[in-house]
Amino acid sequence: MKSSHASEELRIAVVGAGALGGYYGARLAQAGRDVHFLMRSDFDHVHRKGLKIKSAEGDVHLQELQCYQNPAAIGPVDLVIIAVKTTANEALLELLPPLLHEKTHLLTLQNGLGNEEFLAANFGGSRVLGGLCYVCLNRTAPGEILHLGKGRMHIGEFDCGDGGCPEERTHRVVREFKACGVTSAAVDNLATERWKKLVWNVPFNGLSIVAGGVSTSRLLEDEGLMILIRELMEEVIAAAGALGHQIPNAFIETMIEVTHAMGDYRPSSMIDFLEGREVEVESIWGEPFRLGHQAGVELGRLGFLYRLIRHLVASRGATS
Amino acid sequence: MKSSHASEELRIAVVGAGALGGYYGARLAQAGRDVHFLMRSDFDHVHRKGLKIKSAEGDVHLQELQCYQNPAAIGPVDLVIIAVKTTANEALLELLPPLLHEKTHLLTLQNGLGNEEFLAANFGGSRVLGGLCYVCLNRTAPGEILHLGKGRMHIGEFDCGDGGCPEERTHRVVREFKACGVTSAAVDNLATERWKKLVWNVPFNGLSIVAGGVSTSRLLEDEGLMILIRELMEEVIAAAGALGHQIPNAFIETMIEVTHAMGDYRPSSMIDFLEGREVEVESIWGEPFRLGHQAGVELGRLGFLYRLIRHLVASRGATS
Repeated sequence: MKSSHASEELRIAVVGAGALGGYYGARLAQAGRDVHFLMRSDFDHVHRKGLKIKSAEGDVHLQELQCYQNPAAIGPVDLVIIAVKTTANEALLELLPPLLHEKTHLLTLQNGLGNEEFLAANFGGSRVLGGLCYVCLNRTAPGEILHLGKGRMHIGEFDCGDGGCPEERTHRVVREFKACGVTSAAVDNLATERWKKLVWNVPFNGLSIVAGGVSTSRLLEDEGLMILIRELMEEVIAAAGALGHQIPNAFIETMIEVTHAMGDYRPSSMIDFLEGREVEVESIWGEPFRLGHQAGVELGRLGFLYRLIRHLVASRGATS
Repeated sequence: MKSSHASEELRIAVVGAGALGGYYGARLAQAGRDVHFLMRSDFDHVHRKGLKIKSAEGDVHLQELQCYQNPAAIGPVDLVIIAVKTTANEALLELLPPLLHEKTHLLTLQNGLGNEEFLAANFGGSRVLGGLCYVCLNRTAPGEILHLGKGRMHIGEFDCGDGGCPEERTHRVVREFKACGVTSAAVDNLATERWKKLVWNVPFNGLSIVAGGVSTSRLLEDEGLMILIRELMEEVIAAAGALGHQIPNAFIETMIEVTHAMGDYRPSSMIDFLEGREVEVESIWGEPFRLGHQAGVELGRLGFLYRLIRHLVASRGATS
């Protein structure tokens, strides 16, 4: 099924093929791009049986993927799509170097704050891009991804050059995704977009955990929790504002409308929590709290949520 | 074992013989006072087997208690000790009238805010006393109470007369408890004492529930939660202050030291929550939040805790 491309075809590696990496990597591979999947726990399954995406937009079953357990077997690529859990960032220090040539770009699709900074500190800021994925995905089994809706990706640069953001390198990646059917756009200010995404993730991912493992629709039904959700959103917007990222308060009601349209969605952090997997506590709640707090913003509710989730995650499985 | 008393002997009724009513009622009965227990769920058991208190200060087994299922069978008494859950206050509208004569005093040992107000509105403020119990009790089985420590009771008046508080009626009740071995004192300002107790109950009862059903010692071990505990205490003190009840901030560290000395204590609200019984959400978290909020105090963490506990209690047993 692989179509031929001009000499400028990108070699692409996807590091971490959970729901997010698997979904976008599959969209690229499905359109015939030269995609190499680096995976750990799902390797055997995907190597034998391929990757299945169940989606209202059409199911996909990619039988013969280029998948690997070792980055040296892939070698240098032009674009690395990073989709490992933020809690596994330290592992990137060993996984990424074999994938890099001088101009390799790193596109992190990871959640929350601190990931571009981590990549920039270790591999140089000028190659770091960030992607914000507005998509509802659940990994339902090894090699199986349920796509519940949406899929838009906003891409921006960590380190703006003198000519301003976004630069041609970002537009090129955007064109590549668009050509593969992924709604995609370049954004001027990646950090502002990250904060905007947190306006949703902080309350909905967080409360779905501490409210006992419930879906977004259950949160929306509780009047008291809706007050708390709006207050948490206000705190995130205030923290963002103190750090130079202006988000209008009207964005709150937009986010709540969007959530109503999601139906009975179970945020991935909540599923991770219930199934005993790592939860991205620091990138979603810890780092926004610390940055806003350092900027002098009163973040009582965000701090509460952060400390409580950290406790719950640390004591999972422990007896009282 | 009943000793004879002067003609001024008080007729006493205890309404609600869970851990609190059972414990203090037993102390009075043990010393030969004329105590009548009104109980519902534990009646059969206590009627047949009596009331057992396991205590480091000496176990007690009272075999023949005067216990009743119907207040009319008790008739008018001089003092009603009220120890039902605050969630059952509406039932008092039917349970109390048969117990009242013109000068009957009502002593509520219930938790949190709003109980004296409820009794005053329905039975007249001049007969309402409130008792704050500093005691660690768990009801371990029907008719069985585990006394883990302490037992001091502070008693005050809801409605101060022209002569100031406390009046002779309160001193008399204090003398009665003291004569039965219960450390007891009259306090000038009942409402201030209620707020002081909430400085402990709000964070420790609350977080022991939302942190997953853990004991106080588990909360004390978590540095992040200790920050939150102190912040919640500051909010309660700020709310109290705005309502005219001055509590020094140094009280926070005193309360934390006291908690260290409690060992592995499981707050009663947490046990109630885990065992599917009613939790006193409104009197411990709702009413303090509303009163402080109406007084213009920013109570982000208390509001968070209140809304989250209300959600958790309402959705117990529901599937996500």
